[in-house]
Amino acid sequence: MEYIILDVDTGIDDALAIAYAVRSPLAEVLGLTTCFGNTSVEEATRNSLQVLELLGADHIPVAMGAPNPLLRAPLKQKATAIHGENAIGDVELPLPKSEALAIDAATFIVNTVRERPGQVTLVTVGSQTNLALAIMKDPEIVKLVKRVVIMGGAVTVPGNVTPVAEANIYSDPEAAAYVFQSGIPITLVGLDVTMQTLLTREHLADWRAKGTDLGRTLADMCDFYMDAYYQFNPTLGGCALHDPLAVGVVLDPTFVQTRSLHVQVDTEGSLSIGRTIGDLRANSAQAPNMDVCLEVDVERFVTHFLEWVV
Amino acid sequence: MEYIILDVDTGIDDALAIAYAVRSPLAEVLGLTTCFGNTSVEEATRNSLQVLELLGADHIPVAMGAPNPLLRAPLKQKATAIHGENAIGDVELPLPKSEALAIDAATFIVNTVRERPGQVTLVTVGSQTNLALAIMKDPEIVKLVKRVVIMGGAVTVPGNVTPVAEANIYSDPEAAAYVFQSGIPITLVGLDVTMQTLLTREHLADWRAKGTDLGRTLADMCDFYMDAYYQFNPTLGGCALHDPLAVGVVLDPTFVQTRSLHVQVDTEGSLSIGRTIGDLRANSAQAPNMDVCLEVDVERFVTHFLEWVV
Repeated sequence: MEYIILDVDTGIDDALAIAYAVRSPLAEVLGLTTCFGNTSVEEATRNSLQVLELLGADHIPVAMGAPNPLLRAPLKQKATAIHGENAIGDVELPLPKSEALAIDAATFIVNTVRERPGQVTLVTVGSQTNLALAIMKDPEIVKLVKRVVIMGGAVTVPGNVTPVAEANIYSDPEAAAYVFQSGIPITLVGLDVTMQTLLTREHLADWRAKGTDLGRTLADMCDFYMDAYYQFNPTLGGCALHDPLAVGVVLDPTFVQTRSLHVQVDTEGSLSIGRTIGDLRANSAQAPNMDVCLEVDVERFVTHFLEWVV
Repeated sequence: MEYIILDVDTGIDDALAIAYAVRSPLAEVLGLTTCFGNTSVEEATRNSLQVLELLGADHIPVAMGAPNPLLRAPLKQKATAIHGENAIGDVELPLPKSEALAIDAATFIVNTVRERPGQVTLVTVGSQTNLALAIMKDPEIVKLVKRVVIMGGAVTVPGNVTPVAEANIYSDPEAAAYVFQSGIPITLVGLDVTMQTLLTREHLADWRAKGTDLGRTLADMCDFYMDAYYQFNPTLGGCALHDPLAVGVVLDPTFVQTRSLHVQVDTEGSLSIGRTIGDLRANSAQAPNMDVCLEVDVERFVTHFLEWVV
């Protein structure tokens, strides 16, 4: 059983990742923490509560986190073109009955990791802001977590918000740079692998055919997401399962092949800010600070995801 | 017949490129221009004169160019570890009888291009400083050259002087950025292809077996270069024919396969300075500004190079 804290900026693919993690028997989700990113932290929090209620999982606590990057004004705005005005594909869900915790995300992360030393995997599928704040609050957690699995970055492939930067890292480059050098054990699930994992319209038809609220609602969200993807990637044939793959890597690490690399985040200039720079030189003398996913068994992962998500 | 100006920072592989261009019947070398880089511009000029005399080609004029980057203090020092104290592998050649021209490299480039509009290919195998100065001096040359073939950059592969930057671009990032955006037609021959083109010890034995001064001298230089390569790339099995490949691409463009891309040079920050950033996104909206070599027919090129170089 994997104990997970899922840090989200919910977000359509965040909603899919939450559903996958909550419904899989291989994981116990100890809580969600929320962050700005795809939308404001307030909306990400509301969406997270709504998705948990849709899943019948409102016993899972939600802790609201950072509204803004650590050290700078936001580099990008709410991603309405990708995720819709309400960030969940303009699907209307009932207002949540539950509320976020009174403690913030960083405090929740520290407390939860301290309660289960060596057992908690942090899965961050938004910016690294909450995790950076948690490490600043309690540096010892870098040795007390089991691992951090980060959906973010693009080490060997182009970016998505700039030619070279991936959205989650670009959201808060300094936070990511801080986390990367903190010594916390990291698996990086970047565009290198996530862009290969596609959800298609046929999958959505299968979800709708189940006749459940969950299947219909997630399919409606994903219709919006696929329409948006089609605008930007007309040849891709679906939408990428970015955030779900980070959850998948926790549930079954054999879905991916990794390479140990020294990776830094560029926090300067205009062209390269937010880029994840891996030292790919054969003769690199820099000690690796993470395992970077470079290959993914698409079929096994997508099959597993589809088995559990709705 | 290709009319070539070869801009060099001679340098061992520069010497090979000069020999290849001068001895090939497919090209007429109209002149060499020299630049700081592998060594000082003064030493690069002396080495160039010496190599031309070794080749019996001291009718080819040499114009000395920039001693320093356009806008900044040098980012790197003389590459003695790679090219030796005298930059030609510590091989002693007779002091040159000939001298450099009284005009500087940028003036030589402008004059020569103006004399043969549409016919001159500039092959730059050092920094872009002289070419940038030439364009500043006479912006119309961007339409009057046949093409610029640049040995420089690393668009899809790691760098060699930093994890992400190649030495020639790193030598003067602002000059490269200026040239890249100038509208001059560019073919970029970067580490993407040059690291695949290897010279081996067996080739040097063949050169020595010819019993000529030229064969012995170039082999002696390359012994130094290979020893240096072995320090940095013990598994490579030879030394890369960086500069000769740029000449090869002029002599026979079918040695390489290119992709039209928008490429910028990062001139900011510390991690990414000197990096050539290609917009490799499938949905890039940025107009291409060069053809980037991404594949090379190693065997055909190396065979052709060996046929002519000594």
